[in-house]
Amino acid sequence: MSFSYVTHLYCPKCDAHYDVNQAHHLCQCGSPLLVDYDLDALSDNFKTTMLKERKPTLWRYHELLPVKREKHVVSLGEGMTPLLSMPRIGENMGIPHLYMKDEGMVPSGSFKARGAAVGVSKAKELGVEAIAMPTNGNAGAAWALYAARAGIKSYIVMPVSAPTITRLEVALSGAHLNLVDGLISDAGRIVAQAVQDVGFYDASTLKEPYRIEGKKTMGLEIAEQLDWQMPDVILYPTGGGVGLIGIYKALKELMAMGWIEGPLPRLVAVQSTGCAPIVQAWEDKKEESTFWTDASTIAFGINVPKAIGDFLVLEAIYETDGCAMAVDDTAIVQEQQCIASLEGAFICPEGAATFVAARQLREHGWIKDHDTVIALNTGQGIKYPDTMQVEAPVLKPGDRLKLKN
Amino acid sequence: MSFSYVTHLYCPKCDAHYDVNQAHHLCQCGSPLLVDYDLDALSDNFKTTMLKERKPTLWRYHELLPVKREKHVVSLGEGMTPLLSMPRIGENMGIPHLYMKDEGMVPSGSFKARGAAVGVSKAKELGVEAIAMPTNGNAGAAWALYAARAGIKSYIVMPVSAPTITRLEVALSGAHLNLVDGLISDAGRIVAQAVQDVGFYDASTLKEPYRIEGKKTMGLEIAEQLDWQMPDVILYPTGGGVGLIGIYKALKELMAMGWIEGPLPRLVAVQSTGCAPIVQAWEDKKEESTFWTDASTIAFGINVPKAIGDFLVLEAIYETDGCAMAVDDTAIVQEQQCIASLEGAFICPEGAATFVAARQLREHGWIKDHDTVIALNTGQGIKYPDTMQVEAPVLKPGDRLKLKN
Repeated sequence: MSFSYVTHLYCPKCDAHYDVNQAHHLCQCGSPLLVDYDLDALSDNFKTTMLKERKPTLWRYHELLPVKREKHVVSLGEGMTPLLSMPRIGENMGIPHLYMKDEGMVPSGSFKARGAAVGVSKAKELGVEAIAMPTNGNAGAAWALYAARAGIKSYIVMPVSAPTITRLEVALSGAHLNLVDGLISDAGRIVAQAVQDVGFYDASTLKEPYRIEGKKTMGLEIAEQLDWQMPDVILYPTGGGVGLIGIYKALKELMAMGWIEGPLPRLVAVQSTGCAPIVQAWEDKKEESTFWTDASTIAFGINVPKAIGDFLVLEAIYETDGCAMAVDDTAIVQEQQCIASLEGAFICPEGAATFVAARQLREHGWIKDHDTVIALNTGQGIKYPDTMQVEAPVLKPGDRLKLKN
Repeated sequence: MSFSYVTHLYCPKCDAHYDVNQAHHLCQCGSPLLVDYDLDALSDNFKTTMLKERKPTLWRYHELLPVKREKHVVSLGEGMTPLLSMPRIGENMGIPHLYMKDEGMVPSGSFKARGAAVGVSKAKELGVEAIAMPTNGNAGAAWALYAARAGIKSYIVMPVSAPTITRLEVALSGAHLNLVDGLISDAGRIVAQAVQDVGFYDASTLKEPYRIEGKKTMGLEIAEQLDWQMPDVILYPTGGGVGLIGIYKALKELMAMGWIEGPLPRLVAVQSTGCAPIVQAWEDKKEESTFWTDASTIAFGINVPKAIGDFLVLEAIYETDGCAMAVDDTAIVQEQQCIASLEGAFICPEGAATFVAARQLREHGWIKDHDTVIALNTGQGIKYPDTMQVEAPVLKPGDRLKLKN
């Protein structure tokens, strides 16, 4: 048994192949690269029973991950997050089989830790000394922290309007933090220039091929947690879309290995009405999206006006008979409160967006009565302290409790 | 096999017994009550091998928990947090076998979720409709959220100076939040009055006996994660001290069941120089602590001037040849940065305090070269966004990355 069954990198557009033992970023044709594995050998050698006694981290699937030597694994215990049943909010929206995959319970409190764990581990294996990346906050925080644990330097550029707590995470990790008075696309151009000038390892979304492999493990875990039975619908808050691409890739790999049978779940890309390029492209039946001008939403992680992997997101939606839906900020905040008061989970705005979409798709009949539905919460609500204000009475020592407020 | 082997409640001071099927709070003698189990039957019927295929939550130890019927379990997937090796900070402080039990990776981002999960589940089993409690923030947030999932009302009182993010958690859960311009002891008096006036279920620290059972699972997990071998030292940030009492109780129960052998690890109660009643009592070789006047520290969770379970904390220290140590806020903030930059973990001030203590105990020789040492981090750093300020250059779109900052 090898630790990893990774074989090579390939281009999903022009099918060019690249060596997995060297640092590669985009294909010569401009497309992101994907990682391939020896699925035939895995089908013969890797069995679901082998997982039973492994630790509850994403590294339990190391055969299906790109890191070749265990000593290069950089881990903070990430993965195997809960798949929670949500009976009360499910009843509230008429979806009795509603689950939440809760990605708040990972290092840094955001699902970005998965991509960072695998991406930084592979960077360490490749001998990388310094990474650079643009971010809407959470990804930069996760990559900076994992890079610190790996002893790799990092240069992070984020919009001034990104959640302030992520600045603190980046700075504490010892990373070099730059802010930009603009969008993540502006941060991306600054990083691209620095990569060209200084030769940093470019860790931008999908400009390195391994982040997606980390995100993929969400799909592997959902399959294992449902005992290798497929749900009917998975809703995913879509900015760069790496998680949705990753879940789709994971399920196709599991199918090739014979661990699951089709049909695959219908994948739903959830965006904000303030930034909905994938939704627009899907409604227009296009294969790529158009840059969304004046993008704005409180769900900061999905404020991505043009995703480099948009064509892969759209392919995953079309191939699974999924859909794309935009929801507005007001509904997101209401849903956050509804989820906290009915289920005791304080989730992030991006996660709440998937519940809004589930509610609306149920109302429209797109989600059926008996569908098993998974809403993916990508992070903790506590990372966004400014989305709501709290009013509460202030007592003096010796006062009596106010029962109504 | 029963779901739980709980038998009764008992008083550690006067040995009175109480029925576990009725709501009880303090003993008539004024002491907190503890939960007992049929350890002989457990020794016969419960085997470590039975754990191997159970889910990675604290409910894997349900036989050793007080909830009798599985349907009363209120869970958000809490428990089985990572026990991470910390090689770089360990080298930095001369402790090669240094581990961190990372309690940031639980619902609400703080270890208070353990006590809340078990406490609220038992309250649900007892038919409780409304709880009330004082809090320094994180416990109130956790109890309010779990109570929401259980459909139980909650009344939470916290100091105005408690971390503001915990106000938001409480309010979003639908709980009734009151602030008090004072300390947790003032909040406690307000809750006691309301319990007397209205008849709420008093969920104050150690005034209900089940929170400690939830915290106990940290000790069970540490033992399982070390394959039932005992570490030499466990450091715990001590406010109310419930976790330390719980870990000690867990290890004694495991020893009675024959799952582990002694000697037990030396338990270290870590406090702040701004609030160190346990340290003072330990230095004076006393069995109880004295109220600490003008208590103040940035490690808000350990800002407890007089803990109701102080005698149990001190007993655990004396019985394991442990010690108590106070550390100052400046050292805590420095250690937070050191841990983030060397290990990629952004931990809370209370957690960082245990690393400061480990460093100083190693310098003094109290921790030996080959000791296996576990520092308990009780929560995520992101819950305390105001402990540090970040300076970073602000670029305009099109600017070049600043490499030095």
